[in-house]
Amino acid sequence: MSDALAAALDSRRAVVEEALDRALPPHGAWPATIHRAVRYSLFAGGKRIRPILVLAAGEAVGGTRDDVLPLACAVEMIHTYSLIHDDLPAMDDDDLRRGKPTSHKVFGEALAILAGDALLTRAFHLMAEVPPEWNGDRVRRRLAAAAILGEACGTGGLIGGQVEDLESEGKAVAASALERLHRAKTGALLSACVRGGAVLGGAGGADLASLARYASAIGLAFQVVDDILDATEGAEQLGKTAGKDHAAQKATYVSVHGLDRARIMARDLLTEALDALAPLGSRTELLAGIARLIVERRA
Amino acid sequence: MSDALAAALDSRRAVVEEALDRALPPHGAWPATIHRAVRYSLFAGGKRIRPILVLAAGEAVGGTRDDVLPLACAVEMIHTYSLIHDDLPAMDDDDLRRGKPTSHKVFGEALAILAGDALLTRAFHLMAEVPPEWNGDRVRRRLAAAAILGEACGTGGLIGGQVEDLESEGKAVAASALERLHRAKTGALLSACVRGGAVLGGAGGADLASLARYASAIGLAFQVVDDILDATEGAEQLGKTAGKDHAAQKATYVSVHGLDRARIMARDLLTEALDALAPLGSRTELLAGIARLIVERRA
Repeated sequence: MSDALAAALDSRRAVVEEALDRALPPHGAWPATIHRAVRYSLFAGGKRIRPILVLAAGEAVGGTRDDVLPLACAVEMIHTYSLIHDDLPAMDDDDLRRGKPTSHKVFGEALAILAGDALLTRAFHLMAEVPPEWNGDRVRRRLAAAAILGEACGTGGLIGGQVEDLESEGKAVAASALERLHRAKTGALLSACVRGGAVLGGAGGADLASLARYASAIGLAFQVVDDILDATEGAEQLGKTAGKDHAAQKATYVSVHGLDRARIMARDLLTEALDALAPLGSRTELLAGIARLIVERRA
Repeated sequence: MSDALAAALDSRRAVVEEALDRALPPHGAWPATIHRAVRYSLFAGGKRIRPILVLAAGEAVGGTRDDVLPLACAVEMIHTYSLIHDDLPAMDDDDLRRGKPTSHKVFGEALAILAGDALLTRAFHLMAEVPPEWNGDRVRRRLAAAAILGEACGTGGLIGGQVEDLESEGKAVAASALERLHRAKTGALLSACVRGGAVLGGAGGADLASLARYASAIGLAFQVVDDILDATEGAEQLGKTAGKDHAAQKATYVSVHGLDRARIMARDLLTEALDALAPLGSRTELLAGIARLIVERRA
């Protein structure tokens, strides 16, 4: 990663951390345990790729930070809720996440379920909070972004992908079904970050279409690389149980296409993402950097 | 219940059933299992008191049905999600709900968790979907209602109440703590139905204050009556496991205040609710009927 990209990511990450903290009730608010559980997972050292994507998409189309920050917080809350629920014993039954014990290991299952519910609820609540002085167009853009988010997190997106993932365990899965699963489970939210950020930033139709193409490519690339890492890296590197997909007989890009072909797919998707940014001109450097980061990451 | 009230409730209930059906993906939509689980619980014979409250509040201030129907559907989805998650083995571990096996008994825990998540997500997604021709004021009212809903369902409302409920099991609970618990767990959502319906219907400040007072009274009355019924009725009558609160050593209005005092509280709260409606004039008959129904119900 270049120093310039690292600095660009760090500065946005600091903005996101601060905004997430402000978006939650203060420490000790009633009931204390649920807020401890929410903060434990939300501030567990995530890389904040999704909220930074929201900021970067907004910047690429000339939007202000005030316009995009609530969505940036919302997508990180939703990402975190989905990890907490996916890790539950009834789902993927994971003990380790980002190098720390999972929520249900620390707080018990009931509180982990409720912490996920709380993050999902707060995400949409945040999208509904607008300053009274905002004009009709800004309010309308906020609702449009909330609708994009709702679509991405529903049974046709995040939730549907998790259902399909659970149901495909131990079964032979066709390449087309695998792509549908991951477009829903990982791609939909990543795409909503980019499209939602662009809508909030006031993007017009052509820019929105370019960014949607970019989003689609990085969404799929993200999962392909995840599968490559799960097959090739150790638990210490990943901060979560490694080889888990293989052990659970889950279909992955590596199990379906093989490691070499999966690596070629990831490179091709990066090229596609960068090509999609070309018509947008000069303000897309950060988006391009994030695409490279997604494909070249090691954890 | 008078014939007029029964007919008024029936006609609104039919509107709600139809709107709920339209608000979900069509039968057989991908992935099929999650939509089966969502529909199983959402169409399990609920009385639809919350959505009817939304419609009644909107009508009381002269709003149109188009203005309030999305919130009516959203509150029923959220009520249903909270029942599914509360019934989970890690929470209240209930096998029976509305006379039918609970979601996790039929679909397994993973799908029950995800069905709850899906209903919560769809509720807020629905609030974000507005026709493109709506003017700024209508769009702003929709966001305001979504914010009321988000507040009611968060850690200061529905979720906080459930946390507190779980944590108070087997402990002595003061009357003030019991009221705070139930204002959060039951009252907040009922209040959001009334206040949200009024906001969507275009209510001004004075009407909104009267309706908030009404909502606060019926919210508490609802829980007092629930506790009375749990202590006095059988499982067949309730469609859920009876005497469960007593068995779990949960604090209830009956255990804290005794049955006679709880009955007096319910009557006093009904009087307060009806008094609060007086300044609103003639269009509050349905709201008054619902208040009586909540206090006089037998299940």
